[in-house]
Parts: sequence; structure tokens; C-alpha cells
Amino acid sequence: MPYELYYWPGIQGRGEFVRLALEAAGAEYIDVTRLSGRGKGVDAMLRLMDAAEREPFAPPFLKAGKLIIAQVANILQYLGPRIGLGPKSEAARLWTHQLQLTVTDFVHEIHDTHHPIASSLYYEEQKDEARARTGHFLTTRLPKYLGYFERVIENNGTGRGHTVGRSLSYVDLSMFQLISGLRYAFPKTMSRRKRNYPRLSALHEKVATNANVAAYLASERRIAFNEDGVFRCYTELER
Amino acid sequence: MPYELYYWPGIQGRGEFVRLALEAAGAEYIDVTRLSGRGKGVDAMLRLMDAAEREPFAPPFLKAGKLIIAQVANILQYLGPRIGLGPKSEAARLWTHQLQLTVTDFVHEIHDTHHPIASSLYYEEQKDEARARTGHFLTTRLPKYLGYFERVIENNGTGRGHTVGRSLSYVDLSMFQLISGLRYAFPKTMSRRKRNYPRLSALHEKVATNANVAAYLASERRIAFNEDGVFRCYTELER
Repeated sequence: MPYELYYWPGIQGRGEFVRLALEAAGAEYIDVTRLSGRGKGVDAMLRLMDAAEREPFAPPFLKAGKLIIAQVANILQYLGPRIGLGPKSEAARLWTHQLQLTVTDFVHEIHDTHHPIASSLYYEEQKDEARARTGHFLTTRLPKYLGYFERVIENNGTGRGHTVGRSLSYVDLSMFQLISGLRYAFPKTMSRRKRNYPRLSALHEKVATNANVAAYLASERRIAFNEDGVFRCYTELER
Repeated sequence: MPYELYYWPGIQGRGEFVRLALEAAGAEYIDVTRLSGRGKGVDAMLRLMDAAEREPFAPPFLKAGKLIIAQVANILQYLGPRIGLGPKSEAARLWTHQLQLTVTDFVHEIHDTHHPIASSLYYEEQKDEARARTGHFLTTRLPKYLGYFERVIENNGTGRGHTVGRSLSYVDLSMFQLISGLRYAFPKTMSRRKRNYPRLSALHEKVATNANVAAYLASERRIAFNEDGVFRCYTELER
């Protein structure tokens, strides 16, 4: 039975971290809200959320048989060992998950650069505050997170450039997504600082040229970055 | 061997969600930075972070034998079944963890009410923006999260007022901490809306009167809420 992924159509958003894992693994899945017909579409997602005995707070969520699992890091923790993208031993699983939760924190901070006051307001209604928050983000938070992940790759001695273990994991895929998104949102900053993060750049390249990932990125299944998602390119924020 | 908890001394902060679980379970633990002497204090924490093969991004972290585990929800997921505060079956573990990750998101939003622009600035430097963010938080986000957790308790049919299962879990303890903190930070709002969340109020009371928790709260081990932590009482923000 294929996995069912539920997320808002039209944006990569948080769902993309799960979609990338499913694609890289060549797992069978249905991208429910991007299809139409009976049991498909956004309505189906909202109905399932309402009806679920264990209600998710928000998309994305994954249906795996009878299980409904929400929260990106939780979904990846579940999927990882099943689709060959995460370790099986407890110590390694905890560490891999810990890194993914740090990705979650980073994504939250990236999102709030353009929405520092309220998610329910338009960006245009909080532009001045977004400029202030982005300034601090680019000078203090971005280097702190990227420097950390750069060290993680470095410290993974036998890891051949991977974040954990010796082969591709869901955390590597999330690194790819972070670097891609940050390059889209803050092209000048990321280009200027590229030499500070050689391992992250190399990992980004390695993931991009993985056969399954490359095929996915070239397909229509990959939604383009846009200004409704987590990573938004507002040039006025980067100045 | 006792667990070792590492967190900033002087604030409850994110560490308190772990401390509450250790205390409620009557687990043996050392609160490392609140002690002095060899291998104790903040210096010991920073040294361990630097030296760790698997470096935590930030405190809190737990040392359990040779394992160093960071990220509150990850620590609780590990501790839960070991100290009798979390389920053992996979489906129940995923659901419990999913709720804890929703707590993490909520805590992040609570923190940002007083720090919408940058964690590295003082509150006083972002007071106007904090007022704007808090206004939106109190009218839209707070009721969304509390309404959600209220339904979780309601939907846990045989749960006797617990969030998951039939007995005390680490998520119940986090609910206690959230309600306590929100009442401290936003007393007027929480008092006015109390009748909207009867199950959360009852759970808060149930946890507060648990023998181990009550003893802990009355002890000097419980740090008082203050204006350096996640939950801060700035009366000008609640208006």
C-alpha cells in the first residue's frame, strides 16, 4: 500500500522535506492534495484532519496504513529506517532525529524572517519588521546554524561527506533543501559566504546529482520556489 | 548511574519540561549547572558541548550513560518509556511525540511574543514589535493551540483527563507547565478564558497535586518564573 502524503498544494513548504525523502528512496506514495477526484484534493485533507482520532495540529501529515503521523521530524523518524534513509540503532536514531529537530528550529526562524509579527498577516503588512528580523537573522542566526551543520559533517569522520553514517539519510536531504532554499531567498549572502561552508556545498551537489533526486527535481512533481512558501525571495530584505 | 541534566541555571526555560518529567518520575538526576565543584557549573556544560562527538546545537541536553541527547522532545521521547511517563508501543509513542513536538512549536511562538525581532536583542529594544506580535498571538494562536490540546484530552476517550493513555505522561507534565507559564505571563487573558479550557484546567490541577510534583514545586529545586525565561510577565504586552 503506497504512503499518502498530505500537504498544502502549490508550495514546497514543510511538506517538501518529506516529499524529498519519499522521492530519493523511490518509495511509492500518493501526493493527495495535488490530485483530483474522490478522496483527493485539499478537501480530503481537511476532512481527514477533522475525522482523525489522533488529530494533527497542522499539515504535513503522512498516512501509512492505519497510522496518521504529523510533524515533519516525526514523519522522517518513522520513514527513515523503513525506506533506507535512516539508521536503525537507537543511539544513531536519536542523533539523526536530534539533527532533524534542529532543522525544524532553523526552518521556523527562516519562516519568521518574512513573518515576524503574525502568520495571519500578509508580508506587506510587516515589511519593516521583516527587514529588521532578516538583518539579525543573516548576521547572527544563519552563520550559527550553517556553521553547526558544517561541523556535523566534519565530525562525522568516516561519513564521506554525509551528516550521519556513511550513506544518504533524510538529514542529508534536508541539508540539500535548506541550502537550495537559502540560495533562492538570500542569493547574495549565500554566494558571498559559500567558501565558509564547503562541506554543505559539496553535500548539496552530491544530493542534487543523486539519480532519484535529479529525476524528481526535473519533473513536474517538484514545485518551484515561490513567495507563498517558507523560502521567499524579497530582495529588499537582503540589503 | 543518575541522569545528568544540562541547562542554563537561573531560568526554567526549555529545560523545565525535562526537569518536570525527571521529578514526577522520582528519577535520580544531577542538575549539573546548578551545582558547583569539579565537573559542575555552566563551564562544565559548555566544555561538554564543545567536546561532544555528537555536539548539541543548544541546551538543554541529557547525559544518560554514554549518550548525550539534545532537543526537549527527543529527550522526553527517550526518557518516557524508561521512567514510566510514556507509552511503549510504536503507534502510541509516535502520537505522544507528535504532541510534544506541537508543544515545541507553541513554546517557540510564546518565546517570540517578547522577542519578535531577535533573541540577541533585549526585550526593551523590540517592545513595540513585541506588543504587535503578542496581540496577534493572544487573539489567534493561543486559542488555536489551547483549543487543540483541549480536544486532544476530550478525544482520549478512556483517558480519565489525560492527554494520552490512562496515566500520567510527559505530555501531561508539559500541559501543566504551559498552563502555569501562560497564567504567569498573561494572567488576565488566561483568567478570562478559563471556562473555554475546562479539561486543561483540570489536568493542570491534577498534575499540581501529584505527590512528586507537589513536593518538587514546593522545593528550592523549582526555579521561580522570571523575566529571563520563556514565559515573561510584561503587563504592557497583554493590553
